[in-house]
Amino acid sequence: MDHSDLDSIFNPRSVAVAGVSTKSEGAGFGGINYLNSLLHCGFKGKIYPVNPKGGEIKGLKVYPNVKDIPEPVDYVISCIPASAALELMRDCAAKGVKGIHFYTSGFSETATKEGDQLEKAACSLARQSGIRVIGPNCMGVYHPKGGLAFVSDSSNESGSVGLICQSGGNAIYLIRAAAQRGIRFSKAISYGNACDVNESDLLEYLADDPDTKIITAYIEGVNNGQRFKQALNKTASTKPVVVLKAGTSEIGAVAAASHTGSLSGSERIWDGLLHQVGAVRVYSLEELIDMAVTFSYLSLPAGRRTAVLGVGGGTTVLLADDCAGAGLIVPRFPPVTRKELSNLLGSEAGTILNNPVDLSADAWRVGFYDILKVLANSDNIDLTMVHFPFSITSLPPPRAETWEFLLQDVLRAYRELTKPLVVVIHFLVFEEDCKWMLKAQRKCYEAGIAVYHSIGGAAKAVDRLLRYRELRQSRS
Amino acid sequence: MDHSDLDSIFNPRSVAVAGVSTKSEGAGFGGINYLNSLLHCGFKGKIYPVNPKGGEIKGLKVYPNVKDIPEPVDYVISCIPASAALELMRDCAAKGVKGIHFYTSGFSETATKEGDQLEKAACSLARQSGIRVIGPNCMGVYHPKGGLAFVSDSSNESGSVGLICQSGGNAIYLIRAAAQRGIRFSKAISYGNACDVNESDLLEYLADDPDTKIITAYIEGVNNGQRFKQALNKTASTKPVVVLKAGTSEIGAVAAASHTGSLSGSERIWDGLLHQVGAVRVYSLEELIDMAVTFSYLSLPAGRRTAVLGVGGGTTVLLADDCAGAGLIVPRFPPVTRKELSNLLGSEAGTILNNPVDLSADAWRVGFYDILKVLANSDNIDLTMVHFPFSITSLPPPRAETWEFLLQDVLRAYRELTKPLVVVIHFLVFEEDCKWMLKAQRKCYEAGIAVYHSIGGAAKAVDRLLRYRELRQSRS
Repeated sequence: MDHSDLDSIFNPRSVAVAGVSTKSEGAGFGGINYLNSLLHCGFKGKIYPVNPKGGEIKGLKVYPNVKDIPEPVDYVISCIPASAALELMRDCAAKGVKGIHFYTSGFSETATKEGDQLEKAACSLARQSGIRVIGPNCMGVYHPKGGLAFVSDSSNESGSVGLICQSGGNAIYLIRAAAQRGIRFSKAISYGNACDVNESDLLEYLADDPDTKIITAYIEGVNNGQRFKQALNKTASTKPVVVLKAGTSEIGAVAAASHTGSLSGSERIWDGLLHQVGAVRVYSLEELIDMAVTFSYLSLPAGRRTAVLGVGGGTTVLLADDCAGAGLIVPRFPPVTRKELSNLLGSEAGTILNNPVDLSADAWRVGFYDILKVLANSDNIDLTMVHFPFSITSLPPPRAETWEFLLQDVLRAYRELTKPLVVVIHFLVFEEDCKWMLKAQRKCYEAGIAVYHSIGGAAKAVDRLLRYRELRQSRS
Repeated sequence: MDHSDLDSIFNPRSVAVAGVSTKSEGAGFGGINYLNSLLHCGFKGKIYPVNPKGGEIKGLKVYPNVKDIPEPVDYVISCIPASAALELMRDCAAKGVKGIHFYTSGFSETATKEGDQLEKAACSLARQSGIRVIGPNCMGVYHPKGGLAFVSDSSNESGSVGLICQSGGNAIYLIRAAAQRGIRFSKAISYGNACDVNESDLLEYLADDPDTKIITAYIEGVNNGQRFKQALNKTASTKPVVVLKAGTSEIGAVAAASHTGSLSGSERIWDGLLHQVGAVRVYSLEELIDMAVTFSYLSLPAGRRTAVLGVGGGTTVLLADDCAGAGLIVPRFPPVTRKELSNLLGSEAGTILNNPVDLSADAWRVGFYDILKVLANSDNIDLTMVHFPFSITSLPPPRAETWEFLLQDVLRAYRELTKPLVVVIHFLVFEEDCKWMLKAQRKCYEAGIAVYHSIGGAAKAVDRLLRYRELRQSRS
């Protein structure tokens, strides 16, 4: 498939940002945000701020009009009011621009006749001039390799996860939150009202994009169901596709219509479609990130038989319930495994020589390393989950050293194990814990380990990975 | 009902801690932990450390044996090895002790004949001597008014929530995590194997306890189902009872048996029982805390019609889905409400003049206060939920001031509103956010507002509150 038109959006040689106010250097959103983001992301081409008042900002000359820019402009980011959109479009056509992203809102999502007509007119003008349009009413393109970003704190590192996201706010959140879980993006596109470039175009583009190994999508609704079905089918047959369909409730659908002018479609239709094409359906932003982590970091377990290692008797009982609830199997250990655990733990009271393993009495003495080795070597185990204590401040002193000791044990075991291992670090509720949790999480993903924030979330993700692989296998 | 025997456990005039090692001043658990906790919690009576080696610790004389203590001892906390339990029991009987808590494990939960016999023998000795036993294999009693605690960082403030918790680790987590949500406890008891004082005794005690307004319970299993049913029925007819039944999966039940020697009972039986007596069933520690918050802070909404206020179009679509998923109604606003919103927000693009309300474009300009007033005044609204932005670091600068501005708006609106309001502050994923989240949460609960960590969690809690009240009404 020819993607050259979208290529010039993802890899422009030069970018103009229309609607940069020289007075707004401190403010967060609008033109200045895009200027900061391009500079932060190390965009290699020329950057041209545009504002009728001219002047200079961040050492860059501000041009009164796109047409005044002396060199060619591939891509324009529009932060001007909707009322000036058509004029900008005409100027861009005259200038030979290849793509425009309208951050600008005030189009069809307003559900007014004026907004609708304006969007249609802008889109029609774009078609006539051979300009592709992203949006309107969205954050646009994040492409670390190409130096494009829409927030100035996003990572400059390129990764293997693609994201198409109808919502700008959710795109920002997903990119930032997933970064903390070790996810880096190949390309992420917040595409809003999708008046021209839509979810189907983007899916097909990412399907053919060699940098993208996993595709994640937040979709409120689509306008051309048939086209979407084809695009999704093609995409999901080549790469894992994870879809969060929002607006599934009646009122959510109304909100989606107001937000991006989307037709949501019925819950039943979506469920059938996603199953049919073999996409993985998720139900929250957190689950979407969990699946990006799973496809990125977790090697496929041979089956559902899970060993669970935790600290605390009650915690461990709940962990077993959570695994079972998500469809995993937490089998009893064979005698040889029990014997090996017994050798390590002695016959100490409170020790449970079975699955799930509770290290309450022994974690600080025995550590995680030897236990994890025993669990992974057990004949009837396909993967191991290790759950960190709820809070570092509940550890016996010296706390930081104890936490680090457990963490190093996990990293060491992971390096030596051949069976899959996942780590769960709970969302901690105390300020002191937060930095430890984030640090441990970072060390884990840097070592290549999939980290989750609850056993329930991890178990659900593993179940989805297994189902996905079973489905693909049954269809191949 | 006569509770004088348990009263002397909750309100002892003197406490001996058996098994305090003078060498272990720095360590976290065992006798020294109880000594620290009693001192921290300001226990008013005499504290007697006991260790065969004698000596002194924390300025207190250490007695070689309970019998050597010159004055009467009401309550003994045992941190000695299980092998010495019977001897301690005999000494306590000779001394006229009224209650013993065995932190000590190594009894029936080991699933060994020896452990089982030891527990039976200790319990039988206790019965003969008129001593009540808490445990074994548990953390014991937290009673801020009486100066008793089992961790040294628990609050000294007394509250209205009672907790009975079969697991010690979960009791510690619940008390600490709930404290961050504004929950203070009347009494919390980690009761472990329940060889003598069991869940039924404790439920009945809390049912009659004037300080306890809400009862929460984490239960792995009970030994006397008929007795438990009666106790639960009586308790749930006088106060809200929230139950987390753990060990519902087959393997969870096995883990529960190893943890506290509990017979779990089938999922179906528990579900029927809890519904029949009108207890509120929850499925995780977080949901248990959510219900403690709900019964403590949320006044009963007149119905399920919920106005949702958020920041971000996509977020708001998901919020609507989450509310609908939990059985709440997110109705469209009547024209008068839409008109009032329109007056406040103007006709700005991206603004949704309907429910859920998305303040993306306007939050920093308009704030939450006026909007919340309009929503609460709407004829078809029973309660309002306000969702804070995902991250303070995503706010436009100056961030801290913007966050504080939104927070103060919520507090001000709450003071003036007559309809229920709940606040949702997401678990934030960035270190810088954590302190802001905790600070905002504290300010909210100090003002009397129920705070949750997800709209889904809040919606589920509101649904459970409404169902609980409907059930009580239908049975009264």
